[in-house]
Amino acid sequence: MSKGRVTIPTDANFVDGTKKLLQYWGADAVRDCDGVSLPADVRQFGSDVYKAYFIVREDHEYALAHKEYWQNVALTTDRVTAKSDALDVDLLANTFRESLEVNTLDYKKYWQVIDRTDGTIHADWQYLGNNIVRITNCKLYHEYTVNFFAVNTWDPVQIYNYHVNNWHVPKDIDLDPVYPEALAHMLSRMESWLKANPDVTVVRFTTFFYNFFIVNVTGLKQRIWDWHCYAMTASPAMFELFSAETGREITLEDIVDGGYYSNRFRIPNPTMRAYVDFVQRKCADWAKLFVDLCHKYGKKAIMFDGDHRIGVEPYSPYFANIGLDGVVGAPSSAIYVQQIANMQGIDFTEGRLNPYFFPNECPGDERGTQILLNCWNSMRRGMLKKPIDRIGFGGYLKQVAEYPTFVKAVRQVCDEFREIRTNVGKTSCKSKGKIAVLSYWGRRDSWMLNGTFVDDAGQGACYYWSILAALAVLPFDVDFLSFDDVLDGKLDGYDIAVSCGLTGTSFHGDKCWANPDLLTAIRRFVDNGGGFVGVGEPSGYQRQGRFIQLSDVLGVERECDFRHFEKRDDIDIVPEHWITQGVDMSLVGFNRFVRNIYPVGATVLAADYDWEYPKGNQNAGNVHFAVNEYGKGRSVYLSGITANNQTIRLLYRAFLWAMRGEDKTKYNYAESADVDVFFYEQSGKYALFNDSDNAVETTYYDVDGNKRSVTLGAKEIKWL
Amino acid sequence: MSKGRVTIPTDANFVDGTKKLLQYWGADAVRDCDGVSLPADVRQFGSDVYKAYFIVREDHEYALAHKEYWQNVALTTDRVTAKSDALDVDLLANTFRESLEVNTLDYKKYWQVIDRTDGTIHADWQYLGNNIVRITNCKLYHEYTVNFFAVNTWDPVQIYNYHVNNWHVPKDIDLDPVYPEALAHMLSRMESWLKANPDVTVVRFTTFFYNFFIVNVTGLKQRIWDWHCYAMTASPAMFELFSAETGREITLEDIVDGGYYSNRFRIPNPTMRAYVDFVQRKCADWAKLFVDLCHKYGKKAIMFDGDHRIGVEPYSPYFANIGLDGVVGAPSSAIYVQQIANMQGIDFTEGRLNPYFFPNECPGDERGTQILLNCWNSMRRGMLKKPIDRIGFGGYLKQVAEYPTFVKAVRQVCDEFREIRTNVGKTSCKSKGKIAVLSYWGRRDSWMLNGTFVDDAGQGACYYWSILAALAVLPFDVDFLSFDDVLDGKLDGYDIAVSCGLTGTSFHGDKCWANPDLLTAIRRFVDNGGGFVGVGEPSGYQRQGRFIQLSDVLGVERECDFRHFEKRDDIDIVPEHWITQGVDMSLVGFNRFVRNIYPVGATVLAADYDWEYPKGNQNAGNVHFAVNEYGKGRSVYLSGITANNQTIRLLYRAFLWAMRGEDKTKYNYAESADVDVFFYEQSGKYALFNDSDNAVETTYYDVDGNKRSVTLGAKEIKWL
Repeated sequence: MSKGRVTIPTDANFVDGTKKLLQYWGADAVRDCDGVSLPADVRQFGSDVYKAYFIVREDHEYALAHKEYWQNVALTTDRVTAKSDALDVDLLANTFRESLEVNTLDYKKYWQVIDRTDGTIHADWQYLGNNIVRITNCKLYHEYTVNFFAVNTWDPVQIYNYHVNNWHVPKDIDLDPVYPEALAHMLSRMESWLKANPDVTVVRFTTFFYNFFIVNVTGLKQRIWDWHCYAMTASPAMFELFSAETGREITLEDIVDGGYYSNRFRIPNPTMRAYVDFVQRKCADWAKLFVDLCHKYGKKAIMFDGDHRIGVEPYSPYFANIGLDGVVGAPSSAIYVQQIANMQGIDFTEGRLNPYFFPNECPGDERGTQILLNCWNSMRRGMLKKPIDRIGFGGYLKQVAEYPTFVKAVRQVCDEFREIRTNVGKTSCKSKGKIAVLSYWGRRDSWMLNGTFVDDAGQGACYYWSILAALAVLPFDVDFLSFDDVLDGKLDGYDIAVSCGLTGTSFHGDKCWANPDLLTAIRRFVDNGGGFVGVGEPSGYQRQGRFIQLSDVLGVERECDFRHFEKRDDIDIVPEHWITQGVDMSLVGFNRFVRNIYPVGATVLAADYDWEYPKGNQNAGNVHFAVNEYGKGRSVYLSGITANNQTIRLLYRAFLWAMRGEDKTKYNYAESADVDVFFYEQSGKYALFNDSDNAVETTYYDVDGNKRSVTLGAKEIKWL
Repeated sequence: MSKGRVTIPTDANFVDGTKKLLQYWGADAVRDCDGVSLPADVRQFGSDVYKAYFIVREDHEYALAHKEYWQNVALTTDRVTAKSDALDVDLLANTFRESLEVNTLDYKKYWQVIDRTDGTIHADWQYLGNNIVRITNCKLYHEYTVNFFAVNTWDPVQIYNYHVNNWHVPKDIDLDPVYPEALAHMLSRMESWLKANPDVTVVRFTTFFYNFFIVNVTGLKQRIWDWHCYAMTASPAMFELFSAETGREITLEDIVDGGYYSNRFRIPNPTMRAYVDFVQRKCADWAKLFVDLCHKYGKKAIMFDGDHRIGVEPYSPYFANIGLDGVVGAPSSAIYVQQIANMQGIDFTEGRLNPYFFPNECPGDERGTQILLNCWNSMRRGMLKKPIDRIGFGGYLKQVAEYPTFVKAVRQVCDEFREIRTNVGKTSCKSKGKIAVLSYWGRRDSWMLNGTFVDDAGQGACYYWSILAALAVLPFDVDFLSFDDVLDGKLDGYDIAVSCGLTGTSFHGDKCWANPDLLTAIRRFVDNGGGFVGVGEPSGYQRQGRFIQLSDVLGVERECDFRHFEKRDDIDIVPEHWITQGVDMSLVGFNRFVRNIYPVGATVLAADYDWEYPKGNQNAGNVHFAVNEYGKGRSVYLSGITANNQTIRLLYRAFLWAMRGEDKTKYNYAESADVDVFFYEQSGKYALFNDSDNAVETTYYDVDGNKRSVTLGAKEIKWL
């Protein structure tokens, strides 16, 4: 049994049990948690002591005395159609009125009535009070919305817990650090707390200032939930500060964005982009004040990447300035492990595993064990690529202490994690090439493309998300570059550029593909030997007779119903290719919803025709998989792909082929698509990993290219 | 046996046979045809005599002497990427060089080198001769194309026949009426011909001047085939004439349109729109000269809507000015029957049925009969709604005379056609309402939405085409209105507006839906009691926070990956509705490729979720069928629908529901979806028609609402 790298919850009423499990699991840190508090003499554990701290939401007394410092939110109403000259709009229709209050401060300056039918600001309106705006001189049958500020009267994260648990605790109210007095008060309160908690060695911020965007309909029902949106940072004060410091004007519509709230899938307007940058910079500055205080009192400062994460996102460009010691995330997949493991500007990363030791999340020994092992199995392959530094648990320790199988399973997970972390070190497995994943955002949204957070591949997205799933476990260095990075020449040194965004979104690029410089940068990159892997409708933007703007590079185009005059040949599908060798293509699912892609020079490896239409000149068919050569470089096109061991292997070979790296299957490579060969240069060790539910016997090539054979049990890791 | 309304081919070598079949089939006209000529004494048949006349393509001697009058075509090259400073482009690459020759007349004025990567005209180029343009000062990795005029050296329709039949006849060369001398020559040649053909009573123009757009790669292989494109009307002379008469400038790029050739699926730029209008006006003026000549010599003039149809399309606004007596089409469906039957400005319409009496098209008695009956069955239901005036056949009469079953089947078809035409008259069945189908083009593309001609529902289109299939047989008056018509208030008096275009095309409207006046016109129409039926992504155009701009009317919106923050309720599917009563929903197929449509107020009658994604807030699901109320009006949304008797019935009821016409199922209506009750006011007759392959027993309601019952055999028409 090894020791360290594990945080467990403790409980004032479970001191001896804590000691026993600290030792049994080899944990080296204890933490408090919702519903449990640290023992009085917590130093006796001889471990680190984590304690959560909430900056903006727990100072009820001060908050009630200073309503002027409460946080705001930028909101817009639903659209209402004018069927007469005047229209009364209820600003809080369909909104939980205990959580929001219309902010009438300088409302004539900030609020906006917008005619959504002609897209203009409408001048004629008045506020009648009682949440009602009356719009006059309406154009008949035009739709109108009202943008306004509301004061946040209840911390939105607490609302749900409050109602579902039938709490009668004080309601949390969020204070806004944009007001210097409020910020000063928060800092002095923190200093008092630091003095009062000498036993705490690690302060765990949950999180800092501004909540992600939640709007409730009732106490139990939300209508908006966005982990990335900046609507809750907005206030008259923040707008003033933004203008004063940047010299730019901002209006509610910049945030509201027609009701899309300039969410992460949208390409923001320049003002909104500047605003987000500004808020990130301010939040980093403010957060640093709190972190510095922790350090002054000899404590480490870490943050949980959760509730009040807006402005201090770990991939924001100002994040490292905060000076945090660590970040805790909640990984649920290899992608999420990479998202945490690749954070920079901190000393360590930690992953909070499931289940929480709460009765509802860990209901019994068997079910709890199952949830734990599922969680662990879903991330192990990512850990083998590049591990995080620590793992941890939360909840009621006392409860799970009575689950013998669970307790043993936790020990097994902790040991296996430590073994991985020890063998791999603070590094990655040896890479076979450098891959740049392109999007509008670049590094800011590392490992978070196409979903609402890290792992949420919603409708349409799973066929793109799978690319990240592969990159999270394959032996390549992966960076996320923005289109601006590409324009700045930052593709240099990469072997491959990947585009895998849902069409029309920021992850895809949409109108960015109308920029000639972006197109030529990628053409140059590929022509000079780079690889380009495009998924879905890469570079798709209707312009100058083309949809797929890089159709010369990819060798495919999309029929947008503008070339039905073309007499098409039936697509010639090439059944054999280096990429598909050793891949069970019957388990490879392509994206059936990406349609009408047809070859313009590419070699097609997979395509189909809709049964509704005979082959013929009007029917472009649907190419799903194609390869092309362009100068010294190569490209691979995929309509999208499901995620499983066979598709990950297919992508592995596709990346190698695109970088002309066919020889790279001659070392650190197993014949079986279920088996990874991770090699770690620092330690000189290998991990052979069978990521299937069956035993596998396979040949593999070691780092020197020697052919060997191995048998691995289901999910077994073998260290050599 | 009845008589008349039928044209048959004859043959100089088959005079007695012609007489026999004229009588047996009750035909009243004979015609010549490719490969057969009229008998010397054709008057002996006592019938009308049709003879084909070709204005532009058969005067080989004059053409060879006047190359300056040959037709041109506007072309562009494929895109070529510059990988160095200079680029040589072969204008005729991938082109059949026997058919086209680069036209260097004033080429510096007309040709255009376009940088497709930045969308600008590139100034630095020269023509090297030998079809090569050298582009210099290229921007690296930009794509270039060259727009140019080519002279048409071979009539493109003849090329294929010539090669497939191994002909050694003179090559047809098309003369251009844009040159006054050429036009004068064509007229004088026609007058001589009229004098020389006293026995001909009907001149059948095939067609007039400009061919639809064909470009060949080899003699047998085409790469472009577009029934509507104006590329072959273009020439330096036509551009000059256009500028002189309209005062507008036009360039090749207006025609070439980035390589899309401003085809009918595209919304044209204003210059191109003016150009098409201009050419239609000129062609109508010129055609009138030839038609007037025919009339001067006591002959009727008709045109076959085929080869050289560009500029004289039967739905062009100037068509009636030509003064033609009739038009012959080649119907293959109820839609096509309506397309012909609703032509205006002529005395009669004729439909040439399949098969042609050629060995390859009518190979034997049994197969020929099968083809004939298939053809007839596919159009009968449309004939019962509104018939054309005549039918006809082409080919070698002698050949089919030896097919006894076929000869009998032709008689049966002729008799049944005449019975329909007699009972219905020159009118439609009694209508239950007025429906306006909206598109960019309006009347110009009546019955021709979403396909390359009338009936070609290519990839993606069949789910939209089915709406026309229903309108072609249902008892509604149908008109095709343009968006401009809607803006001009022409929706007044209609019960329903329909939008059923492939997203992004002219049939759909695309950017037209950004016009507030169009949106308010439709909102007003529905609010005041009109019905709106939208198919696919009606009014879809991303703008001001919405995709479906009429989402207030339709009650549905599309998730364009911009509202994943929305916490969605599972879609509540209402299983029963007036519209679906009596419809076998298991036979109704919706368009599975229209996705992410979700309700915003509509009552959902059919929807599904993708199996890839669990229900939840990121998953909008896919609504396929929904209804909504908007003021006094109603709307119906469909993702698209397959075409069969059940879906036609579903649409019938959907239209009635949308117009608040539920009571209209109480008369002229059968309970069985397979049975139509057509009622004709003029004759006072009914047709009960079973459009299924099985006998059907059903109750129906007569014109007075009396409930009756009837049994109909497969495909039986019963006249009452």
